[in-house]
Amino acid sequence: MTGLPKYAKKPLNVVGTRPLRPDGDDKVTGRARFGADHNLPNQLIGKVLRSPHPHARLVSIDVSRALALPGVKAVVTRDDFPDLPEQFALSGELTINYRDVTRQVMAREKVLYEGHPVAAVAAVSEAVALQALALIRVEYEALPHVIDVVEAMQPGAPLLHEQQYTAGVKPKPERPSNVAKRMEFTLGDVAGGFAQADVVIEREFTTKPVHQGYIEPQACIASCTEDGQVDLWTSTQGAFTFRSQCAIVLQMDVSKIRVIPTEIGGGFGGKNNVYNEPLAIVLSRKSHRPVKMVMTREEVFRATGPTSGAHVRVKLGCTRDGRITAAQAELDFQAGAFGGSPIAQATMCAFTRYDLANVHVVGHDVTSNRPKVAAYRAPGAPIAAFAVESVVDEMAQRLDIDPIELRLRNAAREGTRTYYGPTLGPIGYVETLEAAKAHPHYSAPLGPNQGRGVATGFWFNIGNETSVALNVNEDGTVALLLGTIDVAGGHRASLSMIAAEELGIPVDRVRAVVADTSALGFNFVTAGSRGTFAGGLACAVAARDAIEKLRQRVARIREVPVEDVDWRAGRAVPAANASAPFEPMSLAEIAKVAGKTGGTIAGHAEINAQGAGPGFGTHIADVEVDRETGAVRVVRYTVVQDVGKAVHPSYVEGQLQGGAAQGIGWALNEEYVYGADGLLQNPGFLDYRVPVASDLPRIDTLIVEVPNPNHPYGVRGCGEVPIIAPMAAIANAISNAVGVRLCEQPMSPPRVLKALDEVQATRRAR
Amino acid sequence: MTGLPKYAKKPLNVVGTRPLRPDGDDKVTGRARFGADHNLPNQLIGKVLRSPHPHARLVSIDVSRALALPGVKAVVTRDDFPDLPEQFALSGELTINYRDVTRQVMAREKVLYEGHPVAAVAAVSEAVALQALALIRVEYEALPHVIDVVEAMQPGAPLLHEQQYTAGVKPKPERPSNVAKRMEFTLGDVAGGFAQADVVIEREFTTKPVHQGYIEPQACIASCTEDGQVDLWTSTQGAFTFRSQCAIVLQMDVSKIRVIPTEIGGGFGGKNNVYNEPLAIVLSRKSHRPVKMVMTREEVFRATGPTSGAHVRVKLGCTRDGRITAAQAELDFQAGAFGGSPIAQATMCAFTRYDLANVHVVGHDVTSNRPKVAAYRAPGAPIAAFAVESVVDEMAQRLDIDPIELRLRNAAREGTRTYYGPTLGPIGYVETLEAAKAHPHYSAPLGPNQGRGVATGFWFNIGNETSVALNVNEDGTVALLLGTIDVAGGHRASLSMIAAEELGIPVDRVRAVVADTSALGFNFVTAGSRGTFAGGLACAVAARDAIEKLRQRVARIREVPVEDVDWRAGRAVPAANASAPFEPMSLAEIAKVAGKTGGTIAGHAEINAQGAGPGFGTHIADVEVDRETGAVRVVRYTVVQDVGKAVHPSYVEGQLQGGAAQGIGWALNEEYVYGADGLLQNPGFLDYRVPVASDLPRIDTLIVEVPNPNHPYGVRGCGEVPIIAPMAAIANAISNAVGVRLCEQPMSPPRVLKALDEVQATRRAR
Repeated sequence: MTGLPKYAKKPLNVVGTRPLRPDGDDKVTGRARFGADHNLPNQLIGKVLRSPHPHARLVSIDVSRALALPGVKAVVTRDDFPDLPEQFALSGELTINYRDVTRQVMAREKVLYEGHPVAAVAAVSEAVALQALALIRVEYEALPHVIDVVEAMQPGAPLLHEQQYTAGVKPKPERPSNVAKRMEFTLGDVAGGFAQADVVIEREFTTKPVHQGYIEPQACIASCTEDGQVDLWTSTQGAFTFRSQCAIVLQMDVSKIRVIPTEIGGGFGGKNNVYNEPLAIVLSRKSHRPVKMVMTREEVFRATGPTSGAHVRVKLGCTRDGRITAAQAELDFQAGAFGGSPIAQATMCAFTRYDLANVHVVGHDVTSNRPKVAAYRAPGAPIAAFAVESVVDEMAQRLDIDPIELRLRNAAREGTRTYYGPTLGPIGYVETLEAAKAHPHYSAPLGPNQGRGVATGFWFNIGNETSVALNVNEDGTVALLLGTIDVAGGHRASLSMIAAEELGIPVDRVRAVVADTSALGFNFVTAGSRGTFAGGLACAVAARDAIEKLRQRVARIREVPVEDVDWRAGRAVPAANASAPFEPMSLAEIAKVAGKTGGTIAGHAEINAQGAGPGFGTHIADVEVDRETGAVRVVRYTVVQDVGKAVHPSYVEGQLQGGAAQGIGWALNEEYVYGADGLLQNPGFLDYRVPVASDLPRIDTLIVEVPNPNHPYGVRGCGEVPIIAPMAAIANAISNAVGVRLCEQPMSPPRVLKALDEVQATRRAR
Repeated sequence: MTGLPKYAKKPLNVVGTRPLRPDGDDKVTGRARFGADHNLPNQLIGKVLRSPHPHARLVSIDVSRALALPGVKAVVTRDDFPDLPEQFALSGELTINYRDVTRQVMAREKVLYEGHPVAAVAAVSEAVALQALALIRVEYEALPHVIDVVEAMQPGAPLLHEQQYTAGVKPKPERPSNVAKRMEFTLGDVAGGFAQADVVIEREFTTKPVHQGYIEPQACIASCTEDGQVDLWTSTQGAFTFRSQCAIVLQMDVSKIRVIPTEIGGGFGGKNNVYNEPLAIVLSRKSHRPVKMVMTREEVFRATGPTSGAHVRVKLGCTRDGRITAAQAELDFQAGAFGGSPIAQATMCAFTRYDLANVHVVGHDVTSNRPKVAAYRAPGAPIAAFAVESVVDEMAQRLDIDPIELRLRNAAREGTRTYYGPTLGPIGYVETLEAAKAHPHYSAPLGPNQGRGVATGFWFNIGNETSVALNVNEDGTVALLLGTIDVAGGHRASLSMIAAEELGIPVDRVRAVVADTSALGFNFVTAGSRGTFAGGLACAVAARDAIEKLRQRVARIREVPVEDVDWRAGRAVPAANASAPFEPMSLAEIAKVAGKTGGTIAGHAEINAQGAGPGFGTHIADVEVDRETGAVRVVRYTVVQDVGKAVHPSYVEGQLQGGAAQGIGWALNEEYVYGADGLLQNPGFLDYRVPVASDLPRIDTLIVEVPNPNHPYGVRGCGEVPIIAPMAAIANAISNAVGVRLCEQPMSPPRVLKALDEVQATRRAR
């Protein structure tokens, strides 16, 4: 798209300051209304019957006894949902296989994981609904299951989808497979590159699925009229994409569905896709009453997407003086029950911190009997970085080169061609490495059993479809309507600030509100670190549209040519070369007479934001390893990241800290634990251990600002990058502390202890 | 404003048809959420302590005992509201005296009517709130009161506002007065006109205040954060004007207040102004919890605006052949406790059905100790028409000219200059008179004690500020966002139809939603019959804006000049003179690729709609008078009205029937009854009798369509006109039936009986 505003350096009054967050009071007082805080008169409660099997054929479902239970108003099963062909219909760049989506929402021929929905009930109370679930008779024909990604790839592994032939392989394979897709990227001559290497290291890594761990479980309430108009309140990262998904799954006109996004208690990628929403709509349609559905934490764990677990092989060749000559990786990613792991992102992120001549990357997207994965903050990238950045660290150890120095010698810069295609524009990777090297943390002394690790991360950041309306109120204050969800990242703040900066007014004169789908044109999900990049671009477009109208209005009022009217510091003033002077008018003065001079003044933007600026970060982790228990304590942690421009630095710091905290949890403790029966053993926060405040040090942040040329304020986005490096940084720190390299995530006490014991045994054996 | 679309005759596919109403299912199933159907977690209930006196000085208010009651979370009094100077700050044409508004919302120096708010309480339940009200000690110093308008105008009458000097009188009067304003219009030479008359009739009329009688009492819920951001759900005719009013009364930034309009259960002008809303906001601010306030029916009667009661003198001179030579009127209108009756409208409407050379009209806006009046459907006009149309009827009797014929001889037409200024454009008055004359009703036989009356009405209709957003969804369906409230008049239907007509798609592909104030630019209240006129204009502007963008997009996709792209029947097609053919694209096809080709497509309109087309109606009423009881039964009723264009004829018919029904209630039964103590005696629907279904005949309607040249579909608006004529039509029918002319409203059994008795007595005396 042409004509979107570009970066221009200018003095800033609002952008870069730290005003109070507009959602703060509501959140600390409990006033904020999350999904489950919404209720409608006469509502029913919907509950889902879920598969107790990891894999089984669905022979029959008998709901008659449930329907007969007093208080039960509707029951739905696979028969209530249209079967859909594969189609990739969603606007925006996210492609979705709707044949899978409809089976994910409600099992059809088979159940593919423990927790897979089989039926849903709407009743006058949760108790009655649960009673009704127990009355539904489902006949299953159990099938052998497969959980692990490597096992799932073996010939003869239990097959989830009999019609799934690996995509990306030519010719089309003869046999179906659990490998849904294969990807491959080649640059240069990898064999030749390894031949030039003085040192070659090859390692294998495994990671377990981890969950986004948002505080708020999925919650929605749907109300459907007899003529099929739906209002749907839900906790989502994308009201418009949820509307699309429901419309396609239920084969309805998009216009019939209005999605009202509630305040959201975290998403991190996990609330990009519908789960209960289509069920609630159909239950409401059948019962003629609103239906509310709130997941339990156990349902969240068993039936919503964690990220992939993975098996990764990395091979790296390097000259003695620290030039990487070849890089190779094979990444096998669990997709869960349906294809669609973040394998593409992982393969592309694996080595894109380095300027490499010879690269070969292969990726597999593999189905197995577990809940379908969902996006999780920089989807796929942390897993790839865990492997690659561990090997880079080992290479630095072997070459006896400072690990930051080794990265600097190979760092991607403006002009570096990526192995997946594009050439990088202006980026700040080197700047983060240099800032980390100069940071006091990097040279601080370490205690006994302490070690320091460094690792780096890369994320594309994204743009996509975004709409904004900026309405100038009659007193010159501004109502800013945003189409993207404020996923706790604070873009109500940052986008208000950009609007205020553009208009030249104080930020507290702007109030940003997140729109429902009736109020704006299509918006893609808030994901991929696009909120402030794409939203900010849209706000600038909308503000400039409004300023253009303000200038025209003043030209009419003052009877001067519009070219004579400049907009400066919140006022229409005579341009430097104006033919005649005129009395300036402030925004408030223009607004006051707007009605009488032609109508209220508004600016609009409906854009497809292009030109996202890639983000890079360098993390320094200090750990202390308890040699007796294997427990790893993070004692100091510093995140250095190029965010392009920090519009509201406090929020950016929060993003960097939050990403690191989640990465630390991923590194040290989080994992899905399955039994041999294919059932999840730890579906709750007592057994699935996310880090709590006492597990973490204060995470230090250092913001680097290398402007993105494709954004008027240089914004890149900042939410994804900080979760990428922690796993590797901590593995590297452990290695530095106690001399053992952990290639298996989580690096929990038993695994660390085992690794220490093995080293001990080896030493003893010598 | 230039550039708004004008009328153009063209074949119509949607406009003029009768699709199912989009709000129908919700309303018949009870799913629609009116004001009181909204609840927030943790909410409190607010109740108002009201003055028991019609007029008293407020000496002191002690709330300490109320505050001490467990469960009471906040109490507000006059001290919680800023005192305001007079200011006329509201955008749009409605000017409001905010010194009065703040005193109307909460009594300050004095209470001015029974029901005047004195304090308000927020508590955990209604019961506790009511208990708390009883604990508030208010010391009043009772003052003499005045209720009647004529008495209030007398020198020496109890004075409501010591600083109120009649506006519109020069030089400024020496003494304050209950006459808030005097208006005068003069055209030609009235004395000379009367001198030319063969017959002169002069009569006096009185009317009582009547209430709008909306089914849904005022209801709102406010939530205020610690940093002063307010969400306010309320049943209102104007979300944006309520926002303005609250912002000014509470001296807040407009941007801090978000008003979410609920479904509305009738307004008819009575929900144009805030009552409880500022109280709920301040109670929420003080209690840190949401506060819900729902009026009882008694509160609605005692404390919200009825329309004016009035005293009207009319003098009319006519030649023997039925040419009106002079017309004179003096209208004294009750304003209630604060100035602001619809006297301006009444004086302007009084004679604007006739082409007159000599006119003199004087109006007075008079304060007295009753609730401040509010707008009620064609504010003021029915009262003026009752008087004028009764005298015209009597003139026809005296001259023995058919009453329609007399009107035709004097009818206003295109080019008629009004006595208040403007010259009328194309209007359909004559067409309604001729249609009425030709209607079978007009020549149907009458039974014993039956009579037929005719009367006519005129209303300006209005435009004003209106915003619309039209968003093309990704499947080519349309989300239409309206800024004006759908006050049961159905403009969600009519505006969807106009959008569908413009775009060339079926109407069920459009879903209209009423916006909250965060989503669109300023919109004036839905009033004055502007909803479909101004909203339709805005929809046409928005749709054409979208079509322009669709053409540009197709030009880019098909690589042709935009001039080569026409929009026809929902598709972009090659223009007749296109340089080269190209494959047409439907709206759905363009929408599907909109994201990838530049972003979603939307049309916007922020207009100040000008050029409202005046509306005229002619009513025929047949009544039967029970000579024993005085009861008047309406046996047949026909409304003929020029609406310009009936977008959705069923809704228009509903408007005509509804207006007539309310007019019949006004004519026959409705009135505020005050005792000598200044207290209202009938604040409930048992004693204040609105017509029920069994009181009314089926009201027949005949739609006349003389297009308004200033609207693309010729729309004039239709909601106000039908309430104007009924009072006079029924008075004229009674006169025709039993030979008595009633000049006092309501024409209830006692009054009719008294009039019959007087005639009897006069005849006997002869």
